Amino acid sequence: MIDMETYVYPDKKDWKALLQRPTFDTVTLQEKVKAVLNDVQQNGDAAIKKYIVQFDGVELGVFAVTGKEIEEAKAELSNELKEAIQIAANNIHTFHNKQVGEVEMIETMPGIKCWRKSVGIEKVGLYIPGGTAPLFSTILMLGIPASIAGCKQVVLCSPPDKEGKLHPAILFAANLVGINRIYKIGGVQAIAAMAYGTETIDQVYKIFGPGNQYVTCAKQLVQQQGIAIDMPAGPSEVCVLADETANAGFVAADLLSQAEHGADSQVLLVSTNEQLINDVNKELDKQVQLLHRKETALQALQHSKAIVVNNIDEAIDLVNEYAAEHLIISCEQDEVIAERIINAGSIFLGNYSPESVGDYASGTNHTLPTNGFAKAYSGVSVDSFVKKITYQKLTKEGLNNIGATVELMAAAEGLDAHKNAVSIRLKNL
Amino acid sequence: MIDMETYVYPDKKDWKALLQRPTFDTVTLQEKVKAVLNDVQQNGDAAIKKYIVQFDGVELGVFAVTGKEIEEAKAELSNELKEAIQIAANNIHTFHNKQVGEVEMIETMPGIKCWRKSVGIEKVGLYIPGGTAPLFSTILMLGIPASIAGCKQVVLCSPPDKEGKLHPAILFAANLVGINRIYKIGGVQAIAAMAYGTETIDQVYKIFGPGNQYVTCAKQLVQQQGIAIDMPAGPSEVCVLADETANAGFVAADLLSQAEHGADSQVLLVSTNEQLINDVNKELDKQVQLLHRKETALQALQHSKAIVVNNIDEAIDLVNEYAAEHLIISCEQDEVIAERIINAGSIFLGNYSPESVGDYASGTNHTLPTNGFAKAYSGVSVDSFVKKITYQKLTKEGLNNIGATVELMAAAEGLDAHKNAVSIRLKNL
Repeated sequence: MIDMETYVYPDKKDWKALLQRPTFDTVTLQEKVKAVLNDVQQNGDAAIKKYIVQFDGVELGVFAVTGKEIEEAKAELSNELKEAIQIAANNIHTFHNKQVGEVEMIETMPGIKCWRKSVGIEKVGLYIPGGTAPLFSTILMLGIPASIAGCKQVVLCSPPDKEGKLHPAILFAANLVGINRIYKIGGVQAIAAMAYGTETIDQVYKIFGPGNQYVTCAKQLVQQQGIAIDMPAGPSEVCVLADETANAGFVAADLLSQAEHGADSQVLLVSTNEQLINDVNKELDKQVQLLHRKETALQALQHSKAIVVNNIDEAIDLVNEYAAEHLIISCEQDEVIAERIINAGSIFLGNYSPESVGDYASGTNHTLPTNGFAKAYSGVSVDSFVKKITYQKLTKEGLNNIGATVELMAAAEGLDAHKNAVSIRLKNL
Repeated sequence: MIDMETYVYPDKKDWKALLQRPTFDTVTLQEKVKAVLNDVQQNGDAAIKKYIVQFDGVELGVFAVTGKEIEEAKAELSNELKEAIQIAANNIHTFHNKQVGEVEMIETMPGIKCWRKSVGIEKVGLYIPGGTAPLFSTILMLGIPASIAGCKQVVLCSPPDKEGKLHPAILFAANLVGINRIYKIGGVQAIAAMAYGTETIDQVYKIFGPGNQYVTCAKQLVQQQGIAIDMPAGPSEVCVLADETANAGFVAADLLSQAEHGADSQVLLVSTNEQLINDVNKELDKQVQLLHRKETALQALQHSKAIVVNNIDEAIDLVNEYAAEHLIISCEQDEVIAERIINAGSIFLGNYSPESVGDYASGTNHTLPTNGFAKAYSGVSVDSFVKKITYQKLTKEGLNNIGATVELMAAAEGLDAHKNAVSIRLKNL
């Protein structure tokens, strides 16, 4: 019988400890990861070939996926799956395409025009893990905003299987979103290849995508060297906030869809109703038996938590303190509650919005801040793939209007030359 | 006689080496910085008091600035300077206020509504260096977007002088933008206080602001621990792209306004016209003599570079490769050229838009990506102070429309429970 660890009316002062995520020690990984990074930086493709043999157990002559492989992948996939991927891609495109900002010229004073323009980051790299599940959905979530942003070079790296191949759905999705630089490289060596460049792979300016602890550590290390990354990483997590109108079967299904991700997945149920938690436990027990990834889900559920709170105000405070990656609000007053949430990655409202629709196909992005990072970070969007450059152009009149202000402020900061750059022009008007 | 190191028609293959920034070794600082961070994390206010004695040479009973000190600062500043700061604040507010995104509801398919909302980061910290110049302008550049974003708690830390005071312009500017948690704490101990919290200072989720190498290193280290930071830092820099229509005196003044920042400031002049470079050298020689910070400017100019290129296309390529923090385009075709710039922090067009107007008062932000980071990073804006939360709500019809798509994709990724979260609801429709 599954019994989530349940806390009834915990004291507010204990929340922080209660909501603590497990800490992961990446420091002990650092030496190993640094060695691979340095090796690839110095020895390029040769080092990568060596690590593919070592970690993926296959010898590759070339890393780049060929057009022939793409065609084979298209032929291999069922039409149903191809159509499903296309529908998801359409929705993701529709949602993200509205994130493109327009240039607006602002005249802050007469003769002073300022504006801001989004420009796609020229070179970006996407990392897609291999392993037990081929995460082709993540290709849509990263490739579509990259394409909308106007990134000129998009590189994709993913580890080859024992036959030296990538899953056909990965190739199909990459091709669908217009990525034509696909390399069969995984792990730390993929991050190194994209961060430093090699004979075959162009260096990129920003690296996106999920990965295991080694990949995460490698992304952290190259970030310190000036390569931007999407966001810091941690295990995936869901928080369900449910009242008596929630359906226990639906809630259990949502918790399990998170739990199956990995043994370290975080699952949290917050409710004003203790009976609901009992009902959810029963449903978990029933539903988990049928899962292929039952063992993984059970492991994750072992450290899951259910918290009973006194009222909805307390629930909202608790949820804001936790700052969940995914927050499902299965409450009668879902929209009113959502207005009061300030910390969350993505929010799913009502009984018919399971997290998995957002994971795949509704249109929102599934690359979201975990580990409480939602307090300061956003999920991936078109914004993640652009820089915003500011511009200004002053007429003589504009400089005349603002000149004295700048001179005074520069002098007060003790910066003469800043002042002079204005004065020399004012004299020339 | 000043002679910028001049490169005439350098070969494209040599650009990367030519445009290389000096590298700073923060690794050797890390042990010292970590010791201070850990001490503050463990010993809170007591550790901070100790470091203020050690580094600032003053003993402080309380760190927090009082209302009385604010009133004194207001009385002490000249009316002219107060008015100048107010004018600058108005322009900065006008420009940044347009960066607030509106919520747009998007129906990606019938019954599937998705939207995105900007929410201010609840707790942010601003660091304002002390030292030779009181950078009150940076308070406007950080405090105004924080206020527009709706950040609820804004903490400001700045090192006290030998009398245990902050410069009145710093207090005036902070008060003007509505910051009421001002602490006389500088250096690594300030970053630690904001990152971890102490008895008097609340922990924040994101830290902004410039600083010396110790502060930069501290920000990097707390970033690894999950505290967000504004952007990676490096010495300030300007690139001037000038043709024969540029005014050599203006160009020299702009180069000097960068050079006076610090001995490590980066100054680059790119031109299609060799004569202009000779004229600028003469002007530099003349203008530098009059500066209070002449020695600093001369040091910076020693490693400045002037590059003569064959034509404007080559100039644009070179400037994009450099990715300057500030780019001044003093060319007849300034707007046409600006359209082709893809890497820069902020761009100043024409002969009457010196960098210093953007540094203080035109309205654009002066916290910008240095060190080539403009290839992947934007300057500070209202975006920097918000997270964008996504939302979705499906009706039964919506789930019916997308359900099969999600089921197919989840199954193909081998994630049963993701599929079940949809299936259990579809059965219930």
